[in-house]
Amino acid sequence: MKPVSFQRVGLFARVAAPTTARLMPAILDVLTAADVEILVDPRAAELVPGGHPTPPTEFGSKTDLVIVVGGDGSLLSAARAMDWAPVPITGINLGRLGFLADISPPRMEDALHAILNGQYTLERRLMLQARIGNRLIGHACNDVVIKRLDGSRLLELETWIDNAWVSRTRADGLIVATPTGSTAYALSAGGPILSPSLHNFALVPISPHSLGERPVVIPAERTLRIRPLLESGENAEAVFDGQLACPLAMGNEVLIERSTHELLLLHPPDYEYFATLRKKLGWGGRAPQC
Amino acid sequence: MKPVSFQRVGLFARVAAPTTARLMPAILDVLTAADVEILVDPRAAELVPGGHPTPPTEFGSKTDLVIVVGGDGSLLSAARAMDWAPVPITGINLGRLGFLADISPPRMEDALHAILNGQYTLERRLMLQARIGNRLIGHACNDVVIKRLDGSRLLELETWIDNAWVSRTRADGLIVATPTGSTAYALSAGGPILSPSLHNFALVPISPHSLGERPVVIPAERTLRIRPLLESGENAEAVFDGQLACPLAMGNEVLIERSTHELLLLHPPDYEYFATLRKKLGWGGRAPQC
Amino acid sequence: MKPVSFQRVGLFARVAAPTTARLMPAILDVLTAADVEILVDPRAAELVPGGHPTPPTEFGSKTDLVIVVGGDGSLLSAARAMDWAPVPITGINLGRLGFLADISPPRMEDALHAILNGQYTLERRLMLQARIGNRLIGHACNDVVIKRLDGSRLLELETWIDNAWVSRTRADGLIVATPTGSTAYALSAGGPILSPSLHNFALVPISPHSLGERPVVIPAERTLRIRPLLESGENAEAVFDGQLACPLAMGNEVLIERSTHELLLLHPPDYEYFATLRKKLGWGGRAPQC
Amino acid sequence: MKPVSFQRVGLFARVAAPTTARLMPAILDVLTAADVEILVDPRAAELVPGGHPTPPTEFGSKTDLVIVVGGDGSLLSAARAMDWAPVPITGINLGRLGFLADISPPRMEDALHAILNGQYTLERRLMLQARIGNRLIGHACNDVVIKRLDGSRLLELETWIDNAWVSRTRADGLIVATPTGSTAYALSAGGPILSPSLHNFALVPISPHSLGERPVVIPAERTLRIRPLLESGENAEAVFDGQLACPLAMGNEVLIERSTHELLLLHPPDYEYFATLRKKLGWGGRAPQC
Repeated sequence: MKPVSFQRVGLFARVAAPTTARLMPAILDVLTAADVEILVDPRAAELVPGGHPTPPTEFGSKTDLVIVVGGDGSLLSAARAMDWAPVPITGINLGRLGFLADISPPRMEDALHAILNGQYTLERRLMLQARIGNRLIGHACNDVVIKRLDGSRLLELETWIDNAWVSRTRADGLIVATPTGSTAYALSAGGPILSPSLHNFALVPISPHSLGERPVVIPAERTLRIRPLLESGENAEAVFDGQLACPLAMGNEVLIERSTHELLLLHPPDYEYFATLRKKLGWGGRAPQC
Repeated sequence: MKPVSFQRVGLFARVAAPTTARLMPAILDVLTAADVEILVDPRAAELVPGGHPTPPTEFGSKTDLVIVVGGDGSLLSAARAMDWAPVPITGINLGRLGFLADISPPRMEDALHAILNGQYTLERRLMLQARIGNRLIGHACNDVVIKRLDGSRLLELETWIDNAWVSRTRADGLIVATPTGSTAYALSAGGPILSPSLHNFALVPISPHSLGERPVVIPAERTLRIRPLLESGENAEAVFDGQLACPLAMGNEVLIERSTHELLLLHPPDYEYFATLRKKLGWGGRAPQC
Repeated sequence: MKPVSFQRVGLFARVAAPTTARLMPAILDVLTAADVEILVDPRAAELVPGGHPTPPTEFGSKTDLVIVVGGDGSLLSAARAMDWAPVPITGINLGRLGFLADISPPRMEDALHAILNGQYTLERRLMLQARIGNRLIGHACNDVVIKRLDGSRLLELETWIDNAWVSRTRADGLIVATPTGSTAYALSAGGPILSPSLHNFALVPISPHSLGERPVVIPAERTLRIRPLLESGENAEAVFDGQLACPLAMGNEVLIERSTHELLLLHPPDYEYFATLRKKLGWGGRAPQC
Repeated sequence: MKPVSFQRVGLFARVAAPTTARLMPAILDVLTAADVEILVDPRAAELVPGGHPTPPTEFGSKTDLVIVVGGDGSLLSAARAMDWAPVPITGINLGRLGFLADISPPRMEDALHAILNGQYTLERRLMLQARIGNRLIGHACNDVVIKRLDGSRLLELETWIDNAWVSRTRADGLIVATPTGSTAYALSAGGPILSPSLHNFALVPISPHSLGERPVVIPAERTLRIRPLLESGENAEAVFDGQLACPLAMGNEVLIERSTHELLLLHPPDYEYFATLRKKLGWGGRAPQC
């Protein structure tokens, strides 16, 4: 029976990882059995014999499901390569459970089979975008980080939320995280975990000079205005999901707000957000019998 | 000119504080000049010569503004004494700026004058309520804390959000905080600051055994189910705003959700949420010149 | 061959744990084969058929090695029951690795055999003692915690180190931890890990009101003076290793200093302090190949 | 009366700060009145009319006291410029109290007068040094930080203490701090405060990936071995006091240990370590009346 849900599947893979080549045949078997058309990121083409090499920028118009074989970073790269096209993405992790790539290899075939038969959970995850004036400088699923470009660590930043002045902060940098990003870098820097459905962002200073500087959660409808206080010759940067950096010059003010894009994250049918947290963060205990 | 905004003002005061007696005459002068009717909590009656001693439970029907002279704790007590009646409350702090009681003595007369003339900011702050089954056990503006009643510190708790199992936690206790409470006990325990307008709650474990247990922010629409794992003879309690405690017995499951009440917090016209944070938490810097 | 190292072995066991009864026969086999005399805490006598029930207070003069079957808490209880007699103690944990009870059941027989043949690591771990004036109120291997006795959380404390004034702190309490205790309650409260050989104590405030209050490490030669600021009718307590509590009344000043006792902790020959940390705290990575 | 204590005083100053020029005449008045010989860092020569411009590297043999006008950073720079010569250093801060530069302008003249008359506290503060094999790459009073040189944040590090393997850490970097440095960058990154007399170092991971990675305090007698796991083309660096950086290439292993140098820190007679902490960290309360 041909699945009704998805008919054209795009594939991304972390080619450098040896596990990828080992997993791919089983993935292709499921896809072939389901009789879907396979499109593949040209960089992974040699691992996908029957796939049509297709530029990722065309995945938006040519696929209705994207499968990423890799980790959370690979999934974020794929979404970026697709220019945030609104196609559902699902991730098969390479051994280490991810927050985003949450299909583990042993359960891969069952999960894919279920998904292709229309059994899955689809989440719309908030994203961020940043501008300098009217010039858009990037989008992010996890976080936008403002930090020094040169070696020195301390950056002085002035922050406004809409037009309300928040503070002048001295820190290694400032993380603005989505709920999705709240379990990534922001968590390491002391930020809270934001439930994935929240329409909020978290501002998390990195190693702030003042001990009273603490993570702040704000509504996603606000616009953050961040002004790095740079002197002549100093440079800062805005980094998007740890993958793309945009240099900031003296006087630049970065506006960070909810992106016009969303990440469409597709999970296998037995997905539980807190189960991932329990496994990744070592939360205690067996499931209660009730 | 008689103010149009408020005509019947209720007064609470922390009588034990010597500053209260010193501040009261000036407060009464402003109220008298504004020609409002003054009702007073009977415990503070001797400080308010012209006021009508009135049980706080009647403030809901008999006043349209409540002024509290004290700290944040006094303001919370007043709201509790009024059975959370939907009357705006404003607080005059006794020297140390509060997050809730944010009118400072030197600016008291101007602020009250402005408020009585209709110049103010009114905020509706989310509250929490807790039930055991269908039995309501308390309301809180800041937080509900589940902890051991006896001396021993470690409490084992199972937590669900709606019907999703979250974790089994071993900790000194668990704080469920509103945005208002996020700058109180929850902040000391490592929780994030939630902007006052957020419709969220924060779950903050107190000194959790496992280092992976971190604060989690959830939507206010969810119902938290918390089950303390007690053995025979052990007791826990749910504490509301640090003011009222309800004992929990073996097998009790506490349901915590958004309260049917709200705190109507009235601020002087120049109120800025972040200004209070900057002062209370020592956030850096002078206001930028722009 | 009769082992030369130890000839009279004392036994403690957490009788309530079902695992204890299952492990005991194998332990007794090793001890019997080694031809050592077995003394046993009367509460565990029924699990130890050939052992001489002996009051723990006599273990100091009648044993030269003590074996505890239980967790870290059981080992601390045993040391306390023996009045801190300078006899080496080793612990067999009941399934969950302990920081102190570090012999795991599967390796129990080999480890005991090695120890009885003189192959082991012996550590002398610093302890704390507390006085009110000249009256000794307790000893602790892990920590002395000063906190409120009644339900209310916030305790105001004044602290001196020798005669230097440190601060007035408002917190849930204050932990004074040894290096041994630095991986127990103090770690949950945000304290640092102190290498076990350090002659230091850590002062760790529990959920301090002021965010600038941070853990402080001091030399073990200092005397801490802690004065809870209590009002009439309020009570605090000093808790020793979470096991013994001494009430503190208004005006009491607690002096905390290095104990005249030490904990003699005996480890199996392959003991590695950092291996325990890696396992208990989930530190990353496989052992490097070098 | 000519002071017996110090006869040849070296001067450093943060020339760029406008306050420096304003403070200098009063400083020179005290020195001139005390009839001491004044040597001056050539960069500050124009601010010190009667001083002998002298290369800082000669301060070790030609001065018996060094005065720095600036902040903590200036004092560390001065000690570095003097090649850590064992001459006592004291610092006059420019308005903002420092942990090291602890003479405030209003009390400057009295403090200098007292010091020149032999009334002062002298502290010998531990320092760190780092080697790659036998090649010394730097000394530090505060800290040695190992981090990525390029933009990417996450660095994987393997750490040994003497020959005991500690862990493989993934983090923004690792701070190794002296007690002096424990109130600088390490504090911002979550490290404990180490009393200045401790012979310890603190290892503080910066935003570690794993939440179980926590600050560890070790004896100053140990040698830390840190190996950044770099791939071809990646670079890391060791940064000394935030002032001097040494690049690390693939395969480099950094050995960090107690320095052969010490910082001789000279304080005014009323110096109290905890008073500085109270002021800088906002610790509570007035001095108790006793």
